[in-house]
Amino acid sequence: MSIKVENLKINYKTLEEFNKFREVGVQELSMKEELETNMVENDSDSPFYGIYLGNKLVARMNLYKRDARFDQYFEPPQNYLELWKVEVLPGYQKKGYGSAMVEYAKSFGLPIKTNPRVNSTDFWEKMGFERVTYDLERDLGENPMVWYPEGVTEQVHE
Amino acid sequence: MSIKVENLKINYKTLEEFNKFREVGVQELSMKEELETNMVENDSDSPFYGIYLGNKLVARMNLYKRDARFDQYFEPPQNYLELWKVEVLPGYQKKGYGSAMVEYAKSFGLPIKTNPRVNSTDFWEKMGFERVTYDLERDLGENPMVWYPEGVTEQVHE
Repeated sequence: MSIKVENLKINYKTLEEFNKFREVGVQELSMKEELETNMVENDSDSPFYGIYLGNKLVARMNLYKRDARFDQYFEPPQNYLELWKVEVLPGYQKKGYGSAMVEYAKSFGLPIKTNPRVNSTDFWEKMGFERVTYDLERDLGENPMVWYPEGVTEQVHE
Repeated sequence: MSIKVENLKINYKTLEEFNKFREVGVQELSMKEELETNMVENDSDSPFYGIYLGNKLVARMNLYKRDARFDQYFEPPQNYLELWKVEVLPGYQKKGYGSAMVEYAKSFGLPIKTNPRVNSTDFWEKMGFERVTYDLERDLGENPMVWYPEGVTEQVHE
């Protein structure tokens, strides 16, 4: 079985599919408003990726490219990806969809940062992510985990 | 009854008290390590605040001052406070301890930003916080709420 991760377009169908997921927040509401007020075009590109089984979106993640000038995590400082809202619908879990999405994110070859949910550390470690050295001023309430492509190391702070 | 919010010193007793709270994470582990390796002095100042009943810490929050140059939320851009891990121990909730901590944070007269936990919006609205206009590039997976002191408004992004 081959699992295909695809970029989701911003349109009413996508937003409708998102309602089935647990982590629906102001982000999606804001996108809906932008669609309704024509601030974005229907089928605009988005930072949303997902896996369809037939017509049904069963897994999603958000992935956003950060510019090197905001990089406080990687050495040398460089463009990197922020990954969030990795979620697989109940009934479709433990089938490799979550891993497939994270592998897809890694395929860009950029370092990745994520803020894992409580109790998800095992999953992230299995995917090759590791904790950064906690830095109060940078991380505050976050517990970031990162994935380093070859040749990239942790940015060290005093 | 008067409720006293106090700044907590970083020491073994404080870290021991933190173990009773739900949101104990790498932050506290990192502080413990810093204590053990003498990277910080015992009784150093901390961004932790809390309420003691007798010898028992029953409520806590973290409060950290951000420099104006990192301000993407307030107009005019200025120093502001990041508030996180507001938590009251079970058995001590609904007695005003949470509100007392947030009022204490407001007493500094600086704008405040927080990332509310799911389902805590009502509490924050009661405390005078409001949602900001969601900005993907700035907020990513966060749903920030803010409190504006008089004369401060939302920073507008294109």
